[in-house]
Amino acid sequence: MATQRLATWAQALTYPDLPHEVSHAAVRSFYNWVGCAIGGSQHEATTIARNSLSPFFGAPTSSLLGHHGIQIDAQHAALINGIASHVHDYDDTHLDTIIHPTGPVASALLAVAEWKKGVSGEDFIVALVAGIEAECKVGLTVWPEHYDVGWHITSSAGSIGAAVAVSKILRLSTVQTSHAIGLAATQVIGLREMFGSHTKSFHPGRAAQCGLLAAVLAENGYTSSEKALEANRGWANVVGATKADAAQNLDRWLSVNGPDGLASTGSQVGRWEILRNSFKPFPCGIVIHPIIDACIQLRREIGEDNANPQSIKSVTAKVHPLVLELTGKKTPKDGLEGKFSVYHSGACGLLFGKATPAEYADGVVRDPKVIALRDLITAEIHPTLMPEQATVTVALKDGRTFTKDITNAVGSLEVPLSDEMLETKFIGQCMPVLAGQVHRASEACWAIETSDDIADIVQFLRL
Amino acid sequence: MATQRLATWAQALTYPDLPHEVSHAAVRSFYNWVGCAIGGSQHEATTIARNSLSPFFGAPTSSLLGHHGIQIDAQHAALINGIASHVHDYDDTHLDTIIHPTGPVASALLAVAEWKKGVSGEDFIVALVAGIEAECKVGLTVWPEHYDVGWHITSSAGSIGAAVAVSKILRLSTVQTSHAIGLAATQVIGLREMFGSHTKSFHPGRAAQCGLLAAVLAENGYTSSEKALEANRGWANVVGATKADAAQNLDRWLSVNGPDGLASTGSQVGRWEILRNSFKPFPCGIVIHPIIDACIQLRREIGEDNANPQSIKSVTAKVHPLVLELTGKKTPKDGLEGKFSVYHSGACGLLFGKATPAEYADGVVRDPKVIALRDLITAEIHPTLMPEQATVTVALKDGRTFTKDITNAVGSLEVPLSDEMLETKFIGQCMPVLAGQVHRASEACWAIETSDDIADIVQFLRL
Repeated sequence: MATQRLATWAQALTYPDLPHEVSHAAVRSFYNWVGCAIGGSQHEATTIARNSLSPFFGAPTSSLLGHHGIQIDAQHAALINGIASHVHDYDDTHLDTIIHPTGPVASALLAVAEWKKGVSGEDFIVALVAGIEAECKVGLTVWPEHYDVGWHITSSAGSIGAAVAVSKILRLSTVQTSHAIGLAATQVIGLREMFGSHTKSFHPGRAAQCGLLAAVLAENGYTSSEKALEANRGWANVVGATKADAAQNLDRWLSVNGPDGLASTGSQVGRWEILRNSFKPFPCGIVIHPIIDACIQLRREIGEDNANPQSIKSVTAKVHPLVLELTGKKTPKDGLEGKFSVYHSGACGLLFGKATPAEYADGVVRDPKVIALRDLITAEIHPTLMPEQATVTVALKDGRTFTKDITNAVGSLEVPLSDEMLETKFIGQCMPVLAGQVHRASEACWAIETSDDIADIVQFLRL
Repeated sequence: MATQRLATWAQALTYPDLPHEVSHAAVRSFYNWVGCAIGGSQHEATTIARNSLSPFFGAPTSSLLGHHGIQIDAQHAALINGIASHVHDYDDTHLDTIIHPTGPVASALLAVAEWKKGVSGEDFIVALVAGIEAECKVGLTVWPEHYDVGWHITSSAGSIGAAVAVSKILRLSTVQTSHAIGLAATQVIGLREMFGSHTKSFHPGRAAQCGLLAAVLAENGYTSSEKALEANRGWANVVGATKADAAQNLDRWLSVNGPDGLASTGSQVGRWEILRNSFKPFPCGIVIHPIIDACIQLRREIGEDNANPQSIKSVTAKVHPLVLELTGKKTPKDGLEGKFSVYHSGACGLLFGKATPAEYADGVVRDPKVIALRDLITAEIHPTLMPEQATVTVALKDGRTFTKDITNAVGSLEVPLSDEMLETKFIGQCMPVLAGQVHRASEACWAIETSDDIADIVQFLRL
């Protein structure tokens, strides 16, 4: 029943069914994904994939984001944009499963929307929601054993999300959507052993491509199981590892009646997973985020004019032990090391009021002014603090002191990134690639819901 | 170590390292695969895949077997030929793992060889051996738990075999081959729940494509784990289901020193899995094979002139209970039902001396002469017989009786298909597609080892 339930739910979902907060969460997820995909478009992994696979590119229908007008076939666009969107580990996170949900779904969806032409923003957003709900729900049914045993849940669940989303755009029937889910479920992508290599970013890209392929085959009558998720030798039982109640879990998470089930279109029963999606504000390890957050807020309190090594006497951070274990680098030498330095990161928060990819450029890490402020920062372990907490105190040379306690850093579910901060992140990622075009790109993405044709947006996302 | 060991072994393997029986087994495996791929080229699943994916086809470099001169990109050729080769469930079987080994490997290899041009038959055969050894060895490390839990081992291990084979053809270094293995290992294709739908045949095709993609990315510097098979969260542990000793097993099967390990190139230590590959002689359930085998042999003994309903008084088969349970259809109405009729199958063995796809055409099943002989056959269960055994007795009207005991049917490891029977099978599969060209195709495939360029063979395999 679970596969059919999911297919039926997805097929019936319409844009007017989405509460405003849900559609806005989808726009934010799309917006953040575009920034990540453009931000990662020049990365070595993206470049290798693009160059090595070019002999296979089919008729040009879909754009490579952040590139010079390059269009390729939708399958390869899904793969390569998906790689780019994850390669900096800067994409979104569904915290209940640590799925990065938008990568596999939006990479497939944008490629198909551009290929098929005339897909409206509303249709795109409802397909995105359907796909994200699908992958997060099936992820929840096998979490955490599935992840613990070694599956990269973003891609192993992601291909199913991509298949559901593309099935929506292609207007597949319920049976066809079930077959698409089956074809996606039988392609299980992503071992955690690959973390630390290019292959980690391959995972969401390949999941997008697998889901797209699944939907296209199903559209044309290629048959699959109609109980791929719940069958004895189906997805949940096979990849659920030691989880004995995988099938029961499917019933719980894919029911439209229960409070945890698929969100009901009319009556608000059920839960929208997309409302539990979160965005990383800073391109570095999450343990430093509370300190950066505190420093950015303190910059406003002490006044921008005082946020420099001339006015500041000392900065003291009380932190969780993991902060120094993972990011205790006192004298980082380049951008990459800067990401593992709470001192550099805190200094950027105070000096610039932000920590975007630009603040982790080699030149910034070696800037004497940054180094001077960095050297004024000390970090002390406080065993009673939680990882999401920190306290930062700035003492000015004029004798005043300012203290900021962070209980939950910005970017958490409790303190979500504002649209404004999301835009700062977007601009920081895209500026080096899109330059003067970045603001038009940002505007177009924010306005996606009013678009008659997604292709009109994409033109601003390539060069 | 296991991944590196496999990569090192594969990279070093040369054609002169192959004992004659091994290279001949590879030629037979290739030959049988070509017949299956051409035989399945007109199947609905193959047609749907070809039509629905045509918008994605890249530059034409590689042939679709059995089609009118169609060349497409190597990735899609691997996928579609792989689908075709498995769609009739008539391909080869490595009986220790029930992997159908040639599909994933040869589908990728032929597509790449044609694309790259100038690949010799010797290089092709050694790559095929490397790939088949790789997939069967890694399959053995997780067998049988991996299959039992629900993985279609042909494809879940097959992508690794395809990656190793293509890495050979592309002359990758050991490190690149390790990365290719990693990229293939992270794409785990095939749930058994899909059996009974088109998606079963999708599995070996997709595995071929995944392995090909993996090798191409690795060739260009896309990095992966170098211990993808053996790591804590690597392939064997993640897909090995409850198999606690997966890592130990890897050491055993991927050692070049042990008797079960990878075959040593010089000293003959180790075991060649390709010598344990078997070929199905008849396109029907394996339980009828002993009866067909007996009937074909009896035809020779009673004389072809007597092998008809005019001369035969009765035929009595003593069979294992499964034969009647699975294939007890007394009055089959069409070709598909004929495959589930021991009576029809036995009658064809006696009347025609063969049971190829042609004998399961609707017209043959409805042929009065076939029906007349079929009605003379009775089958009795003998509880002491093993499934691979049968005894068939033919009583002629002239009073003579002939009896044939089968201990192992032809096609088993004990009684391998002769080259001549393999050719009968090939012709039977290919004749409806290639017509007059079939004998040239057969000759070219048998002579693969002497070819300077695989493309010279492929020209006979399309129309």
